[in-house]
Amino acid sequence: MGAHLTRALLDGGHEVVALDDLSGGFTDNVDPRARFVQGSIVDHDLIDRLFAEVRFDHVYHLAAYAAEGLSHFIKRFNYTNNVIGSVNLINASINHDVSCFVFTSSIAVYGAGQVPMREELRPEPEDSYGIAKFAVEQELAVSHEMFGLPYVIFRPHNVYGELQNIGDRYRNVLGIFINQILQGEPLTIFGDGEQTRAFSYVGDVVPALAAAPGTPAALGEVFNIGADVPYSVNHLAEVVRRAMSASDHPVRHLSARNEVQHAYSDHSKVERVFGMRAGTDLREGVMRMVEWAREHGPRATSSFTGIEVERNLPPSWRND
Amino acid sequence: MGAHLTRALLDGGHEVVALDDLSGGFTDNVDPRARFVQGSIVDHDLIDRLFAEVRFDHVYHLAAYAAEGLSHFIKRFNYTNNVIGSVNLINASINHDVSCFVFTSSIAVYGAGQVPMREELRPEPEDSYGIAKFAVEQELAVSHEMFGLPYVIFRPHNVYGELQNIGDRYRNVLGIFINQILQGEPLTIFGDGEQTRAFSYVGDVVPALAAAPGTPAALGEVFNIGADVPYSVNHLAEVVRRAMSASDHPVRHLSARNEVQHAYSDHSKVERVFGMRAGTDLREGVMRMVEWAREHGPRATSSFTGIEVERNLPPSWRND
Repeated sequence: MGAHLTRALLDGGHEVVALDDLSGGFTDNVDPRARFVQGSIVDHDLIDRLFAEVRFDHVYHLAAYAAEGLSHFIKRFNYTNNVIGSVNLINASINHDVSCFVFTSSIAVYGAGQVPMREELRPEPEDSYGIAKFAVEQELAVSHEMFGLPYVIFRPHNVYGELQNIGDRYRNVLGIFINQILQGEPLTIFGDGEQTRAFSYVGDVVPALAAAPGTPAALGEVFNIGADVPYSVNHLAEVVRRAMSASDHPVRHLSARNEVQHAYSDHSKVERVFGMRAGTDLREGVMRMVEWAREHGPRATSSFTGIEVERNLPPSWRND
Repeated sequence: MGAHLTRALLDGGHEVVALDDLSGGFTDNVDPRARFVQGSIVDHDLIDRLFAEVRFDHVYHLAAYAAEGLSHFIKRFNYTNNVIGSVNLINASINHDVSCFVFTSSIAVYGAGQVPMREELRPEPEDSYGIAKFAVEQELAVSHEMFGLPYVIFRPHNVYGELQNIGDRYRNVLGIFINQILQGEPLTIFGDGEQTRAFSYVGDVVPALAAAPGTPAALGEVFNIGADVPYSVNHLAEVVRRAMSASDHPVRHLSARNEVQHAYSDHSKVERVFGMRAGTDLREGVMRMVEWAREHGPRATSSFTGIEVERNLPPSWRND
């Protein structure tokens, strides 16, 4: 998402400094017009140095380890990355008078059984990742109240598209499917595959993010953003197999994991304020991502080595 | 609070290991029957070693840097201590099958304008400290759901009493007042002093904490705990001055800071489940604390040296 946003901002005439720790991103994806800095938001000395050196007008905070299901098992890592890292950026943004802080939260803040998810619902996150995102949302509200920091929060969901890391075993089911077909491995689905998600094409999400600092009605607000229509994971598998001319590609169902069964959001607010609608059809978006992935080939997957709690870890996630 | 709880648990026949980083506590306060370990919950290697060595049945997590007002200015420190530290204990408690995790949260989770505070209200914390406490509450609920960790949460407020650190400039107004009188300094009050708090005597809070793991109806529940009647800070100053025979002791009003104006809680739930009521009258409790403080003398106050955001920091908190 950061790579796409960087390009959109550069195209809009902005200068961009892109910070990434390359834990899930690739320098190949960074537009050469941007200045790239390799590092982590957890490194507050680096953040403070960077903000002292560059006068940032806007901060887009898209950095996170966004593995909802895995976050139960890597709580410390999750909160360090997603809360401490965020707070480092918020501190620096207050101290250096940033005029808009745009934060990508997640629909993980809502938790289960709240569909369609509406921005005014009481968040009841069901995993450590959602709790961390929700804490940062609250921190931004408090930082605005106390220090006047202007902010806009987006809650995207299941974003996919070109440039995405398809080598992460723990997140981005579409990337996992494509990578599995490219490598001749069976598609793996947790449970019966009837859980539904509104898979959202990255090109439908980025324009609102880019426009946020210039949209006064958006300041201090929270927006769901992404596709309207939820599809089952089984349906997604079917769409991917067709897009890759692999209709007979085998599917392997794993034990169900603890996850939200149905998730889709109401997007009337982002439509009202930004006048934008996620219009890309799932088949069309999948086709574009598949084309890109075919050009770039499969990615090796690596295991997360810092598991903190082994209990109830899905067997397919064990480092055996 | 930890020192009082330790004594209550020892008196009840339990063995106790007390962990404290001594940032706000004193070894003198630790009952000699307990094993004392100096260290921080942020040090996850220490926590993991300790849990591997000792088979803990119950974990009482009272460790926090509980400076609500200051937390705006030390966000990273706040979340590191109060979230990362808590998560280290939660991870270890899951991994070592702890049978009850008792957590002292705070009424800071409620935020402003929600009085009387009732457990079922939607938390809307107004400072980084309250956000951190709320995140840990959610983390416990999720850890129970995912791993079966049993827990009880208390939201105490404005606890005071013997053994308290009266040398902290940033928290515990009663201790600050006593220390100021002992040192011949004027009492300092933020704003007009008409903000109200239900100051809670430690001896009224500890028995429920001690009883929590043995109270099946308490498991998975959240309880307000503390005194019922709110008093203004001005009234508290008056009570302290009288208790110390210093009715003419000068008071200095500082600029108001950003804080909740009125805070008091409904305690019907803790009364129903534990059959306990905070019965100590403010004057009586203050008198006990004053007697203890007179015996022990004033404490030197030290400044917090890791301020992360200087903007809007109350002048009296500056390290000049």
